[in-house]
Amino acid sequence: MAERITPRSEDFGRWYTDLVIQGQLADYSPVKGCMVIRPNGYAIWERMQQVLDNMFKETGHVNAYFPLFIPESFMKKEAEHVEGFAPECAIVTHGGGEKLEEPLYVRPTSETIIWSMYKKWIMSYRDLPILINQWANVVRWEMRTRLFLRTTEFLWQEGHTAHSTFEEAEEETLKILEIYRKFAEEYMAMPVIVGRKSEAEKFAGAKHTYSIEALMQDGKALQAGTSHNLGQNFARAFDVTFQDKDGSVKHVYATSWGVSTRLIGALLLTHGDDSGVVIPPRLAQTQIVVIPIWQEATRQPVFDFTNRVFRQLQDHFSVKLDDRDQYKPGYKFTEWEMVGVPLRIEIGPRDVENNQVMVVRRDNRSKTPVGIDELVTRIEQILTVMQQEMYQRALDFQKANTHRSDNYQEFKRILEEKGGFIEAHWCGSAECEEKIKDETKATIRTIPFQREIEAGNCLICGKDSDDGRVIFAKAY
Amino acid sequence: MAERITPRSEDFGRWYTDLVIQGQLADYSPVKGCMVIRPNGYAIWERMQQVLDNMFKETGHVNAYFPLFIPESFMKKEAEHVEGFAPECAIVTHGGGEKLEEPLYVRPTSETIIWSMYKKWIMSYRDLPILINQWANVVRWEMRTRLFLRTTEFLWQEGHTAHSTFEEAEEETLKILEIYRKFAEEYMAMPVIVGRKSEAEKFAGAKHTYSIEALMQDGKALQAGTSHNLGQNFARAFDVTFQDKDGSVKHVYATSWGVSTRLIGALLLTHGDDSGVVIPPRLAQTQIVVIPIWQEATRQPVFDFTNRVFRQLQDHFSVKLDDRDQYKPGYKFTEWEMVGVPLRIEIGPRDVENNQVMVVRRDNRSKTPVGIDELVTRIEQILTVMQQEMYQRALDFQKANTHRSDNYQEFKRILEEKGGFIEAHWCGSAECEEKIKDETKATIRTIPFQREIEAGNCLICGKDSDDGRVIFAKAY
Repeated sequence: MAERITPRSEDFGRWYTDLVIQGQLADYSPVKGCMVIRPNGYAIWERMQQVLDNMFKETGHVNAYFPLFIPESFMKKEAEHVEGFAPECAIVTHGGGEKLEEPLYVRPTSETIIWSMYKKWIMSYRDLPILINQWANVVRWEMRTRLFLRTTEFLWQEGHTAHSTFEEAEEETLKILEIYRKFAEEYMAMPVIVGRKSEAEKFAGAKHTYSIEALMQDGKALQAGTSHNLGQNFARAFDVTFQDKDGSVKHVYATSWGVSTRLIGALLLTHGDDSGVVIPPRLAQTQIVVIPIWQEATRQPVFDFTNRVFRQLQDHFSVKLDDRDQYKPGYKFTEWEMVGVPLRIEIGPRDVENNQVMVVRRDNRSKTPVGIDELVTRIEQILTVMQQEMYQRALDFQKANTHRSDNYQEFKRILEEKGGFIEAHWCGSAECEEKIKDETKATIRTIPFQREIEAGNCLICGKDSDDGRVIFAKAY
Repeated sequence: MAERITPRSEDFGRWYTDLVIQGQLADYSPVKGCMVIRPNGYAIWERMQQVLDNMFKETGHVNAYFPLFIPESFMKKEAEHVEGFAPECAIVTHGGGEKLEEPLYVRPTSETIIWSMYKKWIMSYRDLPILINQWANVVRWEMRTRLFLRTTEFLWQEGHTAHSTFEEAEEETLKILEIYRKFAEEYMAMPVIVGRKSEAEKFAGAKHTYSIEALMQDGKALQAGTSHNLGQNFARAFDVTFQDKDGSVKHVYATSWGVSTRLIGALLLTHGDDSGVVIPPRLAQTQIVVIPIWQEATRQPVFDFTNRVFRQLQDHFSVKLDDRDQYKPGYKFTEWEMVGVPLRIEIGPRDVENNQVMVVRRDNRSKTPVGIDELVTRIEQILTVMQQEMYQRALDFQKANTHRSDNYQEFKRILEEKGGFIEAHWCGSAECEEKIKDETKATIRTIPFQREIEAGNCLICGKDSDDGRVIFAKAY
């Protein structure tokens, strides 16, 4: 962990990679495009899983597991879906020493295999809704990969629900979107724009795709979670019908939704600094590290005091004690800053004398002496304030980097010089959207739910945009 | 859930399949050899994961994630390993629309990919030990599959640790074996025999393999968990060395260990009965279901009382309320018995009058009226006793079905007529072991740690067996 992290100002891309590699969050693997998630990174994912899984269960969802492999013929049943995914699949052609009669696709997402099962399980309205989620690995072949952000294999959750009406499916889609927003903002301290995707950007096979979009420190956008109303597309492709209360037979309505280990990348790009990772308190698997500072003469009193403090903290926080003999305090500080533990507690001989500890916040390095009698309540306060301030700082950044433009030349200049979100008018046509993408690499990130009703003219064709501005950005 | 379960006495194999399918624990998938784990089954796995994960973390292990794909050349680096696993692998030959230069094996186990990474991470004794576990899916091509017990894809955990001495690796191997024993006996209420595998039965690439072996209700054995001391085999294959304290350079010592979704099958085969699954209280995601019983006239008082009871229980147990209007109590009883919830609480008008509830145990159907004032303490007692008695019942079964034999004809007759574990003498040679396997399909399940020191003669060749009896059985 001794190497220097490239400063963000010097090379943002290098900074990110240094963070991941030196923080031991992930590593390159010998398999092209696949990463190894190391324990420091996986601990973040475990905590994300835990929080999201609780939120899914509280809203009536249950977990299940479907096969990794999908028969080629299944992939081909939904026309848009196969077009979107087939080119990026890994394909198993041999198993058990023999060539397979039908190739198997390693799942890039599981709609097809799951809807083939729902056909067996759904007969009547009484079997609905089905609210199933799956935690799994998926594979999408990538040529240009970046650790956590774009890898051939990644981990995610994918929810797949079945409903008797379009309205109920739409309600489910939006309920999950709200869970994603809440998770991003209240746990990751990462503000997001909530909205709908354009036709061009929606999921292959969906009626509507909704997403949460975040802005990274380098001014690029990152899609952090998506929720799709699939209408009856997959039910039609797999002929999944149900008998409704009135005796009529209808195709089932579907949703699907997911977030992935990409969120770890989003977390780093939102909060990381030149010293390493910064994890918000509510998402940290280790919230506090306690580091005693002693000379040979003061060893015993410092250790006794430290152990007392540590035991007291253990009942209320997830806390680690770093009492390794072979490393100096400064080395330990650097190491724990690198991995992003929210609070460091320093305990030296002077602190023992004063019956206090020194609490240091990871995000802004602020130091607060805290008396041993008020240890737990004060630390709870400090963690709460830190969580809020991290969110506020990221929100201030997002606002400061959201621009408005009504002129395509200016739009291009903003993109070039500043990046960030650009609010602009768009006529709604795929042609204008594509022209902007081709010429600037910026895409419509989202048609936000919350936007001013404002008449305006499309950046490209000048036609009316009745509903207000959409958000453009270059994206990860 | 209305269909009849085939009684065990009629057809044990059918009974098992009925249990899994009608209990909606798993289902056959359209992908050959792969199953779908349905929410009822996955809930058991989640609870197993939770308990084991805590036990691993308490002993210093951390989780990580390694790629699904393994380059063919890696598989071939450890000679025994490739011989053992390559024939049962699924192989990816195409990715992203192109033929791959080197085929990728879908991991059947991850020693090779993990040790290729350990080579990057281990330089010095300071980097040791590495105590990593992974929760993942693996694929081993199977011709004859059975839900949970033998499927082409399954879920498991695989621990992979690295140490500086053989002794430390051996200590780790045994520490994990003890965790497996504890989990099987204290949570699954499934008694196991702890011991070492013969050379023929050990893991491909291991020095020693240890296992826990359980006996199922039909008299067949089931290997429920294995822990391997790999010596320096994988470190040599991947040239992983470290500089020791004295400056010398040595190959690293390794262990690996795992349990899988097969444990769900073991649970069913140990405790299931002709009404369905029986889950021991400490392993149940839902411990109690509350079922109100009312007529139209008594609806209101019964529901008020039920809600009061339900709220009180919620603070102490994981409990569900089944207040569905459209089903009769008897139907609900059958349904909850099928999925194995440990306790059912019935509340009728008479109970409301007497200020009590009726508690019914799933395993033996015993009914206990419990006064509302002592609800929590009494139910805690009932759950504790139920857990103990389920274990004791399984242990009694195991003992009653463990036979001794010193005569090969008798040995074959016992196998044929009764099944179960057979304790017999064996000279230690692979030839005699193989002869028994070929002629009877029984294998040496384990050389138990706890066995009487007893001289005897090998069943086959008559030579001395110095150390005592080993355990033979036909196995799943």
